[in-house]
Amino acid sequence: MKSSRYENRIVKCTQLIKNADFEALLLTKPSNMFYLTGDGRLCAFAIITKQGEVAIGVPKTDVVDVEACAYFDRITGFEDEVGMIHAIADHLKCLGIESGTLGLEYTFLTQSMLKMVTHPHAKPETVQVGDATPILSALRMVKEPGELDLLRAAAKRAEIGMEAAVKAVQPGQTESQVAAAAEFAMRNAGAEGFWRTYVSSGPRTNIAHGLPTNRQLQTGDLVMIDIHPLVDWYSSDICRTVCVGQPTEEQQTAYQDYLHAQQTTTSQVKAAVGIADLENTFHDLLRAAGHGDHIFGPPIHGVGIDFEEAPLPPGHAFFHGEKAPPPLPENVVLAVGNCGIYTGKWGVRVEDTVIIREEGPEILTHYPYKL
Amino acid sequence: MKSSRYENRIVKCTQLIKNADFEALLLTKPSNMFYLTGDGRLCAFAIITKQGEVAIGVPKTDVVDVEACAYFDRITGFEDEVGMIHAIADHLKCLGIESGTLGLEYTFLTQSMLKMVTHPHAKPETVQVGDATPILSALRMVKEPGELDLLRAAAKRAEIGMEAAVKAVQPGQTESQVAAAAEFAMRNAGAEGFWRTYVSSGPRTNIAHGLPTNRQLQTGDLVMIDIHPLVDWYSSDICRTVCVGQPTEEQQTAYQDYLHAQQTTTSQVKAAVGIADLENTFHDLLRAAGHGDHIFGPPIHGVGIDFEEAPLPPGHAFFHGEKAPPPLPENVVLAVGNCGIYTGKWGVRVEDTVIIREEGPEILTHYPYKL
Repeated sequence: MKSSRYENRIVKCTQLIKNADFEALLLTKPSNMFYLTGDGRLCAFAIITKQGEVAIGVPKTDVVDVEACAYFDRITGFEDEVGMIHAIADHLKCLGIESGTLGLEYTFLTQSMLKMVTHPHAKPETVQVGDATPILSALRMVKEPGELDLLRAAAKRAEIGMEAAVKAVQPGQTESQVAAAAEFAMRNAGAEGFWRTYVSSGPRTNIAHGLPTNRQLQTGDLVMIDIHPLVDWYSSDICRTVCVGQPTEEQQTAYQDYLHAQQTTTSQVKAAVGIADLENTFHDLLRAAGHGDHIFGPPIHGVGIDFEEAPLPPGHAFFHGEKAPPPLPENVVLAVGNCGIYTGKWGVRVEDTVIIREEGPEILTHYPYKL
Repeated sequence: MKSSRYENRIVKCTQLIKNADFEALLLTKPSNMFYLTGDGRLCAFAIITKQGEVAIGVPKTDVVDVEACAYFDRITGFEDEVGMIHAIADHLKCLGIESGTLGLEYTFLTQSMLKMVTHPHAKPETVQVGDATPILSALRMVKEPGELDLLRAAAKRAEIGMEAAVKAVQPGQTESQVAAAAEFAMRNAGAEGFWRTYVSSGPRTNIAHGLPTNRQLQTGDLVMIDIHPLVDWYSSDICRTVCVGQPTEEQQTAYQDYLHAQQTTTSQVKAAVGIADLENTFHDLLRAAGHGDHIFGPPIHGVGIDFEEAPLPPGHAFFHGEKAPPPLPENVVLAVGNCGIYTGKWGVRVEDTVIIREEGPEILTHYPYKL
């Protein structure tokens, strides 16, 4: 753990905590805790005060492991849910937080988890709660050079996974077997895990979230493959659509229409671009090609520790508890091509992970575009 | 889709909706929607009224796919988040729900999702909301014969995955590569997916949720492998701990202590058993063997469509928004051995999926117990 990295992030965080008029953040989302302390895990919490103090709580079994990798001032190991509640209370008391507002992750906490961390035995009733999501998104949106290197490393594994998946696309293979090939290759190439693998085929390419099934591929099927390896906590996002055998002319045309929209939008990625402008470019090109009724889902989203994170397009941002992002500076990382077109009989989607650089896009995921 | 299966479940559900004094349920958790309608997917919702009417909303891309597999009275396809909100409003209006209480899944909905589904444009402000979690848990806890067959099928894939993982346990292999072997084998044996794969090794076996990393296995390491294949929506849960080479006497003794507690508790599984009694048996045996300070996590939880579901032990149930379960009838399915012991240097865990039968346990996951 390079403590200076986390110290710097905490300093930036304290400014945002003060701007929001919060006393502290109480975090439970692993990716946010990891970003600020160097460790994030299930069943744990981190409190960050506006003075920059960091108090964490983890399962008692994990204390030694966390001490070796995390940046913190105070740590408590707890035995169970009751212990977690008491650990929160102890930390808040020692940190002198008896009033004001505690920032929570409204995009992560379920009602039950919220009830737990705001239990009267956890948090004084005089302390209010508010949404900390915009703070964490603002902190994490522009990537540091070290983060960009990890995103580049994750992208290499995404390419390896896509190559293995496309090789597995054969008549008789199941969607699940294609996913198996991608996941196996990514882990063996150094990925420590992956977010959900999507593989859909034939008529199933027409659905928005095509998780793999045991459907067997048939000659003439389109196959949509969307994979997300993790390297040292950082993600990548690549999607390709391929055909088992020869595509029809109609499929080929739709693919070229989509690829044109995706490539044109990607070429417009540069510092100070607006995410809504990118979205409009993408949608306008699809509409111009006659696919106005075939669009579903936001074409652009951020990529980082989470494979889908801020920035999100304004409409989606609002409904996902995010703020509409400002013009995007250099070193924000985007997935371009998340939407897909869905014709009713089948769909196509092509997506790449791209760094916003001063003068243009740095495309991270390289894999041939061939239906 | 066998509509009689879903009709019967809906009839049972309406009784529980009335008992809770709700007007209807508004569900968004895929496993719950699947149980009641035969289809569950991300970015979708299902309304079940106390009269047994079923209205669903899905991405417009998915309507044809859902129509082929789901049981429903009304269906709407929507374009985006705003469309989803309006689809909820339209259904509620047509179903005549203008007052009373709507049951929501408090253990699933984040604050942001809650805000979306209770947006003033989605739900009349005269309609209150309450927690539907206990209703769904009560419905799903006792498995039907067809569900038990799928749980048996999932267990077979868990055995195949464990065999592949243990074979991959070799010095120099990474934890992630061991996970890769298990996942690849499970998908190729017919699993359509899996919940998170846990593989930890050496000192990392001492942490509660050991997700795989690139740590390379060394001779003398313990390796903890916990896998959860999915077959036709149904899960299994198996954990084994093995040693790279020869375990020490201390490791062997701890393993035998844990196995004894796990096997004794499993032998007490039969109709009308109390989950707290099983938990006490497990903990008492571990304490008697000197592991009182080494326990973390509930030793027992339910298994079904979700790999961790009701029943949960009373303390954990409370904090996870569940009700403490009554004595457990036949055909409830449990994972026995979820807790593990953590000695500080390393940990061991052994877990199996077990059906509660009238006279005793039907153990579903068979894989040798050998450190």
